[in-house]
Amino acid sequence: MRYSQYFIPTVKETPSDAEVVSHKLMLRAGMIRKLAAGIYNYLPLGLRSIRKVEQIVREEMNRAGAIELLMPSVQPAELWQESKRWEQYGKELLRFKDRKDAEFCLGPTHEEVITDLVRREVKSYRQMPLNLYQVQSKFRDEIRPRFGLMRGREFIMKDAYSFDVSSEAADISYDKMYQAYRRIFQRCGLRFRAVEADTGSIGGSSSHEFMVLADSGEDAIVSCTACEYAANVEKAEARLFPPEHAEPRELEKVETPQKRSVEEVTAFLGIPASSLVKTLLCVADGEPVAALVRGDHDLNEIKLKHLLGCEELEMASEEVVERVTGAPVGFAGPVGLKIKIVADLVVQGMKNFVTGGNARDLHFKNVNIGRDFTPALIADIRNVVHGDPCPRCEAGHLEMWRGIEVGHVFKLGTKYSESLRATFLDADGKEQVIFMGCYGIGISRTVAACIEQNHDADGIIFPIPIAPFHCIISAVSTKDAEVMAACDELYRALTAVGVEVLFDDRDERPGSKFKDADLIGIPLRIVVGSKNLAEGKVELKYRKSGEVSLLTLAEAVETVKGLVVAALNQ
Amino acid sequence: MRYSQYFIPTVKETPSDAEVVSHKLMLRAGMIRKLAAGIYNYLPLGLRSIRKVEQIVREEMNRAGAIELLMPSVQPAELWQESKRWEQYGKELLRFKDRKDAEFCLGPTHEEVITDLVRREVKSYRQMPLNLYQVQSKFRDEIRPRFGLMRGREFIMKDAYSFDVSSEAADISYDKMYQAYRRIFQRCGLRFRAVEADTGSIGGSSSHEFMVLADSGEDAIVSCTACEYAANVEKAEARLFPPEHAEPRELEKVETPQKRSVEEVTAFLGIPASSLVKTLLCVADGEPVAALVRGDHDLNEIKLKHLLGCEELEMASEEVVERVTGAPVGFAGPVGLKIKIVADLVVQGMKNFVTGGNARDLHFKNVNIGRDFTPALIADIRNVVHGDPCPRCEAGHLEMWRGIEVGHVFKLGTKYSESLRATFLDADGKEQVIFMGCYGIGISRTVAACIEQNHDADGIIFPIPIAPFHCIISAVSTKDAEVMAACDELYRALTAVGVEVLFDDRDERPGSKFKDADLIGIPLRIVVGSKNLAEGKVELKYRKSGEVSLLTLAEAVETVKGLVVAALNQ
Repeated sequence: MRYSQYFIPTVKETPSDAEVVSHKLMLRAGMIRKLAAGIYNYLPLGLRSIRKVEQIVREEMNRAGAIELLMPSVQPAELWQESKRWEQYGKELLRFKDRKDAEFCLGPTHEEVITDLVRREVKSYRQMPLNLYQVQSKFRDEIRPRFGLMRGREFIMKDAYSFDVSSEAADISYDKMYQAYRRIFQRCGLRFRAVEADTGSIGGSSSHEFMVLADSGEDAIVSCTACEYAANVEKAEARLFPPEHAEPRELEKVETPQKRSVEEVTAFLGIPASSLVKTLLCVADGEPVAALVRGDHDLNEIKLKHLLGCEELEMASEEVVERVTGAPVGFAGPVGLKIKIVADLVVQGMKNFVTGGNARDLHFKNVNIGRDFTPALIADIRNVVHGDPCPRCEAGHLEMWRGIEVGHVFKLGTKYSESLRATFLDADGKEQVIFMGCYGIGISRTVAACIEQNHDADGIIFPIPIAPFHCIISAVSTKDAEVMAACDELYRALTAVGVEVLFDDRDERPGSKFKDADLIGIPLRIVVGSKNLAEGKVELKYRKSGEVSLLTLAEAVETVKGLVVAALNQ
Repeated sequence: MRYSQYFIPTVKETPSDAEVVSHKLMLRAGMIRKLAAGIYNYLPLGLRSIRKVEQIVREEMNRAGAIELLMPSVQPAELWQESKRWEQYGKELLRFKDRKDAEFCLGPTHEEVITDLVRREVKSYRQMPLNLYQVQSKFRDEIRPRFGLMRGREFIMKDAYSFDVSSEAADISYDKMYQAYRRIFQRCGLRFRAVEADTGSIGGSSSHEFMVLADSGEDAIVSCTACEYAANVEKAEARLFPPEHAEPRELEKVETPQKRSVEEVTAFLGIPASSLVKTLLCVADGEPVAALVRGDHDLNEIKLKHLLGCEELEMASEEVVERVTGAPVGFAGPVGLKIKIVADLVVQGMKNFVTGGNARDLHFKNVNIGRDFTPALIADIRNVVHGDPCPRCEAGHLEMWRGIEVGHVFKLGTKYSESLRATFLDADGKEQVIFMGCYGIGISRTVAACIEQNHDADGIIFPIPIAPFHCIISAVSTKDAEVMAACDELYRALTAVGVEVLFDDRDERPGSKFKDADLIGIPLRIVVGSKNLAEGKVELKYRKSGEVSLLTLAEAVETVKGLVVAALNQ
């Protein structure tokens, strides 16, 4: 592709409304343009990367035996009413009426549509296992669309759905997808982790997220230094700590004027945060609950929600805190509290700790479970932290990472097949409910995540497999016929061996061409200038390392070809 | 692909709700399934054909220098308000509000979005010519969706938009697209015509439609037997007939009791329909108009509408007819009529003709233009008919065809660039308005049109280039190890040379396999049975001709490869 005949509207200035690196760089590199909040045009360069990811996904899905189809974006309300998600999904589901006043939505996901198709077409155990997938633009009406393609409203997704005769068979389908996902992100050239995750609103019994590692990632994840264990912090299990062995001391009131936060109280009392227990007041489906975690730990609301089995969980308002504790915010404590108390596992092993005193400017010292208060439940309700012992092995501890979720696989069980009555006849002619799994990859998001992970001050650093072009040829002077002839020769030779080349034939200063090349992140650059060319040489520069080699034209072609082939076959 | 591991839910019975052949066959062949009115799931087999068309389109667009991008489906109302189409487009434009009550629509076409992008990114004449295209699911809320993929609401379309510095440059871009479209439909293996067409609601100065020829086509088109001229009947120009040379006879009243229609009056009077002039009363933007066409001709409302320059044109109601003519419907005539009269060119040359008498049961004989009435306008306002002389050459006459519109190219001029202010600086630094063209192909519709054109009583007959698979291998007995080994060998050999093979390895009766193979329309079938195999032979059957040859395995591979390569390179 000749740069002069292509459409890459790069921008020098950093756009003011972009907060994260991938958003800034995709705008600057002319990969995307905003049409409306969370809705983007994918310009040619952006689309090329998206299509690369798409193609890798497709190949690996096919290899795993999944079959591609394409479902509509516009879905009738009836199916969502059958699954009960019409009411449950909330405002992210964009609903509308057609000209005949029939209700529809723009598909954010396709469990209902695919289950409807399968219940009509699959009648026998002989037709399974079946795994159907599609690549499609989805719409989710996010309340706060932001970060460019990282949290858009319209986005490209691959979604797959597996159908099996039993839970065991569904586990096999799930595992195939898990392995396919590993291959997909490996082939994209990304550093990632597959982590255990919460199933959220999709439902089902268990799930894994695929996280591209990046400091800017929204998700905190952990992995074990010794074994395979990895999980989203929202899901990561904390291990029981050995209890403290200390004699209970006498409960003691202590004045803590104006000291409310953990920092203020522990500094005032001269104790570490780990000697204090925070009392966090929540409201679970309307009922107040006190959650106790160690002062240096954070409450994991998802764990607490699952534990309580409630639909909604939120932090209590000031009014509720004052009504329940009789004190202003900052002095809540379990001693004498009349509501349900849930203590974290770690708190169970603590002795003689500090808590709020349920009165203004008052705390308790030497609080002890059992003697001073009795929790209704003791369970794992905190976020794990760096250095926690691994919940699965004896050898390792947990390391923390930041990650960007790009894939998510779910064991759905019979959630959708039961509500939509997707059944089959087993070998004995008996009607059974189908077991399902669903598997998503954010295709457009993967490109953004790739950029979050791979960039420097000059721009994007694409890995070869999902770069819009593998190689850019920069003609130092387009006026020099020999330079242009050498560029043409390189272009032809590289294209002939399957290398995708962008030939920068623009009549621009070399410096400006190099800046653009760095910005758009093409992994390999061949610079053709008259001085080197007089000696039969061109310069090959690696975008990532900055390394430069002086090579003959033939060597350059061989080297680039070798690098590209190796990267595509990794 | 092994049939047993694929998903092709064929159906024996003809679905009751399908009216046209392509709809019936696509349902029966397991290519599509309905989700809602005009909204279909593309099942794996259907998607494969769609993707074949898509790929040919993409290759030819790229070859013509067009650049692929992808715009959002969800478009903000503001842009449509700027182009004034928010009001004009009518109910086919599906509109909705997002969670923040902002107005959006589901894109039925993308002139506004692309013009907005280009006005922001293109500033100089140096950036043009520019042609940007996308392949995307569109939505049009048709009032009567029907005929399966022929007139769906959600459908896949390729839309391209060209941007040029002048009308002349825009003509060159238009011609490139016209040639690309010819190549596309040729490569798809379809019989088609490119015809001059009306520009309709898209607007612009001229356009061509690409019509797949099929008896079931909704459009009537004509082409000249001698020259290149071809047009949609709605647009086809009628040539001036030589005037009759006859002396005007005296105007005569004739009683025609209860004779209203052309057939009734001419039978009653014993004259040919070509001796009568029909007076058709219309209402143009609220004002009644009388249109005169020869008795055996049809009024072309589009021509009349353009001639009058009106926004709305409809046939007059009974009340209007009675008020304007003073007579019941069936007796209108131009003599003494007080409203605007428009006569067709052919009527101008007629002498001594019959018309209605503007009174119950009365007609006039020997009516003559100029003497008995004077039309306000004389112009071409009729549909051409089979055998009409060609408007462009002296040698040929017009032949009629039925066609299905699969592509449409438009010269838009400055319609959108003016309303959205898409301008550029020319070589002299002067601001100019961009000239545009737009170019659509109904991708999913092309597959349906292909089936309308290519089928028989047994099912679909796909041309090789857009068949879901090139070749099907039918194992007569899956129990026979030698048969299965031969199938495997053929499968491997054919796949290795790029032939796409569906291997029917199902444990079914051969008759049922052959029926499915015919139904889904795979162009080439290799039947592997033990009897022929004992002599080292297999059967190669051509779906289209029904011709059968007995070949060795090696010959079969060579023949199939040869046919496929030839078809793909046509």
